[in-house]
Amino acid sequence: MKFEGSHILSVNQFDRDSIEHVFHVANQMAPYAKRQKRTTVLDGAILGNLFFEPSTRTRVSFGTAFNLLGGEVRETTGMSNSALAKGESLYDTARVLSGYSDIITMRHPDSGSVAEFALGSRVPVINGGDGANEHPTQALLDLYTIQKELQYHGGNIDGLHIAMIGDLKYGRTVHSLSKLLCLFKNVRFTLISPKELAMPDAILSSIENAGHSYTISETLEGNFDADICYQTRVQEERFGSQEEANLYRGKFRLNQQIYTKHFQSKTVIMHPLPRDSRVEANELDNDLNMNPNLAIFRQTDNGVLVRMALFALTLGVESIISKFDKEVHWYSGH
Amino acid sequence: MKFEGSHILSVNQFDRDSIEHVFHVANQMAPYAKRQKRTTVLDGAILGNLFFEPSTRTRVSFGTAFNLLGGEVRETTGMSNSALAKGESLYDTARVLSGYSDIITMRHPDSGSVAEFALGSRVPVINGGDGANEHPTQALLDLYTIQKELQYHGGNIDGLHIAMIGDLKYGRTVHSLSKLLCLFKNVRFTLISPKELAMPDAILSSIENAGHSYTISETLEGNFDADICYQTRVQEERFGSQEEANLYRGKFRLNQQIYTKHFQSKTVIMHPLPRDSRVEANELDNDLNMNPNLAIFRQTDNGVLVRMALFALTLGVESIISKFDKEVHWYSGH
Amino acid sequence: MKFEGSHILSVNQFDRDSIEHVFHVANQMAPYAKRQKRTTVLDGAILGNLFFEPSTRTRVSFGTAFNLLGGEVRETTGMSNSALAKGESLYDTARVLSGYSDIITMRHPDSGSVAEFALGSRVPVINGGDGANEHPTQALLDLYTIQKELQYHGGNIDGLHIAMIGDLKYGRTVHSLSKLLCLFKNVRFTLISPKELAMPDAILSSIENAGHSYTISETLEGNFDADICYQTRVQEERFGSQEEANLYRGKFRLNQQIYTKHFQSKTVIMHPLPRDSRVEANELDNDLNMNPNLAIFRQTDNGVLVRMALFALTLGVESIISKFDKEVHWYSGH
Repeated sequence: MKFEGSHILSVNQFDRDSIEHVFHVANQMAPYAKRQKRTTVLDGAILGNLFFEPSTRTRVSFGTAFNLLGGEVRETTGMSNSALAKGESLYDTARVLSGYSDIITMRHPDSGSVAEFALGSRVPVINGGDGANEHPTQALLDLYTIQKELQYHGGNIDGLHIAMIGDLKYGRTVHSLSKLLCLFKNVRFTLISPKELAMPDAILSSIENAGHSYTISETLEGNFDADICYQTRVQEERFGSQEEANLYRGKFRLNQQIYTKHFQSKTVIMHPLPRDSRVEANELDNDLNMNPNLAIFRQTDNGVLVRMALFALTLGVESIISKFDKEVHWYSGH
Repeated sequence: MKFEGSHILSVNQFDRDSIEHVFHVANQMAPYAKRQKRTTVLDGAILGNLFFEPSTRTRVSFGTAFNLLGGEVRETTGMSNSALAKGESLYDTARVLSGYSDIITMRHPDSGSVAEFALGSRVPVINGGDGANEHPTQALLDLYTIQKELQYHGGNIDGLHIAMIGDLKYGRTVHSLSKLLCLFKNVRFTLISPKELAMPDAILSSIENAGHSYTISETLEGNFDADICYQTRVQEERFGSQEEANLYRGKFRLNQQIYTKHFQSKTVIMHPLPRDSRVEANELDNDLNMNPNLAIFRQTDNGVLVRMALFALTLGVESIISKFDKEVHWYSGH
Repeated sequence: MKFEGSHILSVNQFDRDSIEHVFHVANQMAPYAKRQKRTTVLDGAILGNLFFEPSTRTRVSFGTAFNLLGGEVRETTGMSNSALAKGESLYDTARVLSGYSDIITMRHPDSGSVAEFALGSRVPVINGGDGANEHPTQALLDLYTIQKELQYHGGNIDGLHIAMIGDLKYGRTVHSLSKLLCLFKNVRFTLISPKELAMPDAILSSIENAGHSYTISETLEGNFDADICYQTRVQEERFGSQEEANLYRGKFRLNQQIYTKHFQSKTVIMHPLPRDSRVEANELDNDLNMNPNLAIFRQTDNGVLVRMALFALTLGVESIISKFDKEVHWYSGH
């Protein structure tokens, strides 16, 4: 996969080599993100950070990643203040706004909108989430986190056992992550969800075609010797009736007691921290905050590294970053 | 006209010399906007980009132009979150916010508001559009585009033939552009609009007083040997009755077929891309996108150059920009 | 008080030495704020400027202060677009967003929210106002302004006579300012307010315990030989009934005539310029704009200096700022 000048729109663009290349570059970003060093390799470059749908976390993560490489950020947030809200076509918006920046990150509520926008853009576009469709940087940061967590325990993505819990039917993140995992070897999936929210057959086929194995469970009961427990939210409105929703309420939540009972002591807990709170929905109890295997904040930290890597690769500077190194003189809590 | 330290509030401030000076500086900005070079002449300067009315395109264009000169941008968007919405006077807001920046760009829905704000400001203010009143940077970028397009065909603004189409009565952009064209020689205007939306007498008088000529047409029928076709939107609510609106609906739209029938093969198509979509109103059909004479995206690109020029002139750095040149190391689609 | 790496959450954190240290550093910031010099000491540092409640002035002031030290700003404005609005806990938001920046400034409508946020943050947090609770940078800039205005007249905070006018019961700013003044010597307070909006007993006790003196007045009638007249807004909805509100309407406003009649010719007029306009409520008439003792815009200018000082101290760079000095080449109205 050629990164320089390319759009990053979908996890389907990636093969194993290109993923490993992204992760290799992401590893090199750590000292900059930790403020041990400073680089100005992108001095003068401008990111157009176009969030036509709110997402504070993802928006700030992209902006920070670009700043950490020395670039500037121009931003638009929300639909109501935007040209798009006035009926302007995605093509026109792309033609105009791509004249103002060197690279664009874009979130939009409509599936396919970012790819349509990219057709009109004169600079690379990175998909920051287009509705139910794709959010490739989330999938990459999830996989990058899995790799780092496993390496910490002496493991590897090949041979991984991952438990996915919650809404496996509509969850964009578990689908994308599963696709990426299909590029690796001997992955075991334990898929735990209400029957109504089971993993779609298409993904199951991909898993089988990749030579992986899976088991399906409709309850959190049992002993799961998973390396990773990837938790997602079950939204009550997904069920056919309130009665059915009531049947499942709280059955897929995780707290310290449940974790201790059903998982290994080294099982890493992940969560995409999506549009809704992990706590409101009770899928991850606050009593897990002191659990060292709770990796959800390492995920968001890793997101900065992965986004820095994608910026560096797409703008073709990944091999010259350290030529622009400077010292850091201020206090850093990182 | 003295630029350094001055407000840019109206096209009426400009004489021919000052316009040519702006365009001369704008030409020098091209290598920076194309990312062939990088300058940091405004390193440490802060733009206060105050958009009390939404306009993604103009706002980002100003911000990008300032970044490309090496400056920083502080921004406010929308009225609801602003001090002004809480009843603060323009004078107070100006006194306070001008203490935070080196130059201010401001858009506001009320006519005259930017000039009132400028009275309280301690730094130069550039009008980014104040309701129906003025939007001088749009007029300048329109005229700059005309000059560049004509020069490409070996022509010149003196002797230009421009067709203006659509709402010539309320269209802020055609009024401002006409005023600027009155500073040049031997311009022919072909003014095509519904009778109810004809060019105001005051502008017609200015055109005559400048020694220019005009013809008026109420239909798009005929052979227009114009160098430039400047299209604007006809809003149905401008008519006295729905019946009258129906009478004109679609009569002033441009598509490839109409263009081929009524214009020269080299006629340049322009449009201010204003608050509403060019497509929703059908005034410029998408089938023109492949027409090389469609200059609407060159207009928005030129807007960055003109705004960079105005920043450089107003902050008095136009002659020292290249002293702060740096190399560009990243991929650029520009 | 140790500043490096510390949160700034409350005026209660400060003793006299630490206040004088902040003011000493703020004094050193003046040439940078006036654009006589430029520093890049915070090059590469990122401020997370999180305004979950609108406040254009305070938000831009923080952002500008950080830019003037050479840092970058990532921002979020308003609640509706934020993760917090989606029910995310302050702890989670803090854990995530503190991974993206080197220091955070935060405003939030709820009392105590910023301190709660700080518990989850991995970088220093500066309280930019949390509802009725605290707004320490406002209190510090008020006190800094008092010191500078007094020094201009050859005076000093020790021995100050300050008149406080308006809503002394609910006014966050007068409470905070009073607390800070209790760290100094021999301050005289003249407290002028409707009986219903009198200064709370707790503050009066603090004033007495500090060895200060106060007199209470229910009208603006009299001769007030105050050095400082600190005006705040009386909101009608604070009264028990409309009849009572009517009784007081306009009785605590200040205009040039009232100022001349009741104050010394050198009395400095201050106002926190809070959420509502000074003019709408008529507490400071526009005819005071030409009065050289009107210090309200010097207050907002001083706010930049104080915030720069707090950033420099919290990030531990206050002693090395001038090592990163650069020349300023552009026009500056400052």
